[in-house]
Amino acid sequence: LQNKKYGKARDLLLKNNSVDIAEILEDIMGELDVEIAVIVFRTLPKNVSVEVFSYLPIEDQVAIINVITDKEVSYIMDELAFDDMIDVLEELPANVVDKILEKTPKDERKLINTFLNYPDTCAGSLMTPDYISLEKNMTVAEALAYIKKEGMDSETVYTCYVKDRGRTLLGIVSLRTLVIADDDLCISEFMHTDFISVNVYDDQEEVSDIFKKYGFLAVPVVDKENRLVGIITVDDILDVIEEETTEDFERMAGVIDSSDKEYLDMSVWHHVKNRIPWLFLLMCSYVITGGIIASFEDVLSKVISLVAYLPMLMGTGGNSGSQSATLIIRGMSLDEIDLSDFGKVMWKEIRVSTIVGIILSSLNFVRICWLDGQGSMIALTVCSSMLVIVIAAKVIGSMLPMLAKKVGIDPALMASPMIASLTDMVSVITYFLMASVLLGI
Amino acid sequence: LQNKKYGKARDLLLKNNSVDIAEILEDIMGELDVEIAVIVFRTLPKNVSVEVFSYLPIEDQVAIINVITDKEVSYIMDELAFDDMIDVLEELPANVVDKILEKTPKDERKLINTFLNYPDTCAGSLMTPDYISLEKNMTVAEALAYIKKEGMDSETVYTCYVKDRGRTLLGIVSLRTLVIADDDLCISEFMHTDFISVNVYDDQEEVSDIFKKYGFLAVPVVDKENRLVGIITVDDILDVIEEETTEDFERMAGVIDSSDKEYLDMSVWHHVKNRIPWLFLLMCSYVITGGIIASFEDVLSKVISLVAYLPMLMGTGGNSGSQSATLIIRGMSLDEIDLSDFGKVMWKEIRVSTIVGIILSSLNFVRICWLDGQGSMIALTVCSSMLVIVIAAKVIGSMLPMLAKKVGIDPALMASPMIASLTDMVSVITYFLMASVLLGI
Repeated sequence: LQNKKYGKARDLLLKNNSVDIAEILEDIMGELDVEIAVIVFRTLPKNVSVEVFSYLPIEDQVAIINVITDKEVSYIMDELAFDDMIDVLEELPANVVDKILEKTPKDERKLINTFLNYPDTCAGSLMTPDYISLEKNMTVAEALAYIKKEGMDSETVYTCYVKDRGRTLLGIVSLRTLVIADDDLCISEFMHTDFISVNVYDDQEEVSDIFKKYGFLAVPVVDKENRLVGIITVDDILDVIEEETTEDFERMAGVIDSSDKEYLDMSVWHHVKNRIPWLFLLMCSYVITGGIIASFEDVLSKVISLVAYLPMLMGTGGNSGSQSATLIIRGMSLDEIDLSDFGKVMWKEIRVSTIVGIILSSLNFVRICWLDGQGSMIALTVCSSMLVIVIAAKVIGSMLPMLAKKVGIDPALMASPMIASLTDMVSVITYFLMASVLLGI
Repeated sequence: LQNKKYGKARDLLLKNNSVDIAEILEDIMGELDVEIAVIVFRTLPKNVSVEVFSYLPIEDQVAIINVITDKEVSYIMDELAFDDMIDVLEELPANVVDKILEKTPKDERKLINTFLNYPDTCAGSLMTPDYISLEKNMTVAEALAYIKKEGMDSETVYTCYVKDRGRTLLGIVSLRTLVIADDDLCISEFMHTDFISVNVYDDQEEVSDIFKKYGFLAVPVVDKENRLVGIITVDDILDVIEEETTEDFERMAGVIDSSDKEYLDMSVWHHVKNRIPWLFLLMCSYVITGGIIASFEDVLSKVISLVAYLPMLMGTGGNSGSQSATLIIRGMSLDEIDLSDFGKVMWKEIRVSTIVGIILSSLNFVRICWLDGQGSMIALTVCSSMLVIVIAAKVIGSMLPMLAKKVGIDPALMASPMIASLTDMVSVITYFLMASVLLGI
């Protein structure tokens, strides 16, 4: 299909939704060539091409901009929603941005520059200035007429904002109430004045929490002086939630990733760079564990069969700890668990781990005595260690994320890998101490 | 405050948003007593109380229903949005549901029964039948007048649905286009006919993927015969995303949790039951690892200092594997990685792991020779094992989730704990084989 029959390809493409066209184009860019994708992109009708462009991933957008003519670039920039345009400009090299800005009207250029200056993960970088703003003494009919005129260029028309002369936000009106209300009612009579807003510098995670909690379609963004500067809509929040979740997953597995690139698009070196810091740090922690074992070498050399149970004890310790850590980290990120619940959490984990530990130890005792045919003192050593290790692991696993939050570190960094190397130390010490005492070595 | 001054408490409460009142009430129920919460709840004005009720967690809703009178229950049920009512009814005991249903009109009762029968995680259980349905030959003015009349009881008015006589969905009209369009235009002229819909039995994860991909505010739900049965709105999807993410996190840490209860609300026994299956299963896998070690006991007894490096090798293997597994699992759940990318993923992981392995091994070689003062043959044994283990772990870690998906198991189950116990086996075998060969034992 892709061998020169562009006209046909275009007709087939146009049967799809813009989102799906963007996806197909993305595949073409990944598997074939940017050139071909651009040719296909150019065959699309102008209005469709802008929409498709807005759904492409940022690196493909940049690739296209680098190839097409300046005139085409400024057409796309003109038609793109304001927040999408800012996202593209943020990724372009400074000289390209300058060239684009030269061609935009002065007041828009000023606005763009303000938006470009907000840090990447704050409310300011998510918002758009394209919202419907009404005046408080408009009637419902006037408001609807205004929306009819301005609604095309606005990001959403479903929530409208009432400002005073000083741009301070006075109230919020939903289009639903406008449509339901009588035509000659004045807006100030029924607008919501106890609205919730966010600050431009609020972190995107706080913003998405507000959307989850209240189920809003849009939220107003205000500056330090309480002036309305933009709004954030729920569709952008879905992306934020995805991004934040991915970050949590990666941190919990000891991967540091500062870019938004997809797995397959990232170079081998980038992958190495993301993974080696934690692997190295954790590897170093095993120097201590190794040292502990070395200091117990005489115990070991006397009862060499103890070594066979070491992986089980370390493994079970690590798994128990990471279960607790994950539950606590997730609970805290959903605001189900507060730092003030520390005592409750500990008490729960101690009870849970004692029961879990007793069950696992008993099963093991039977296994070691009967199946492995080991003496009961060795079985006792392994099983009592198991009990202590499970309890310690669950306490460490639940305590560490809470302590991390207390001192302002992301709790997600205290997940499995970190917990596992700590519990490994605890396991080794417990096991060999138990052995020296119980076996009398 | 809570000592009998209910009037005052009520006035203070009413200064808040309903969502926040619900949160305060939730705290009262958790820390003080259901009775007190119900008294406070009853002091609220009727319309506020229904709204507050709808924001309470399901177990608190059930607790309140069990205490208040039948008349109050039926008032709440009448006023509650249809999908919220279904959620509550699903959690109530059958006899209470019957009592409530007795008082509802016959056709609504039938509808409720249909909705109660959809499985818990499918589109049917998320949808509401309260949507605006228009006819295709209505004009814009007629449609707006209809919305004005019916809009109050509908879950959303921002997307309206055009059905034919047989209830088949013909098209979709957004309120935005209605407000912008000329009054005497006919709806059939500008409604979207290439809309995307979901089936009642589609899994909620597929539904939320559609919202993420297209940025919709609502999606129509159709049955097998393509008849419109309800709609799902984006605010309910935010909850689904949260739920699905929590499930992923829990599965990846080896926790099985079938309930939606919060960490602190779950009993100790419930926690034990959720955690012990995987811990036990993984513990069993260490019987094999232990057996492998036991079979190498003669190697060990000759060079006892080998044991000191075992935890480091197992730990680094586990961490390397879980990094890869997490990246692949997350990539697949975001549709960034397909099963068809298997070859690409393997090739990338082999290159990444070789580089990572060489770096970590070299650092270790220096450490073991200089700091630990061990012979270079032992250092070589440890370091060559390290290289093999890191490569094997990353290959296993990336392969297993993809294989799981291939055979229809949730890839999240193949995360850290599972990978760690597999790589532990690999580590032990590699290490001792290397030792026998290189040290000539």
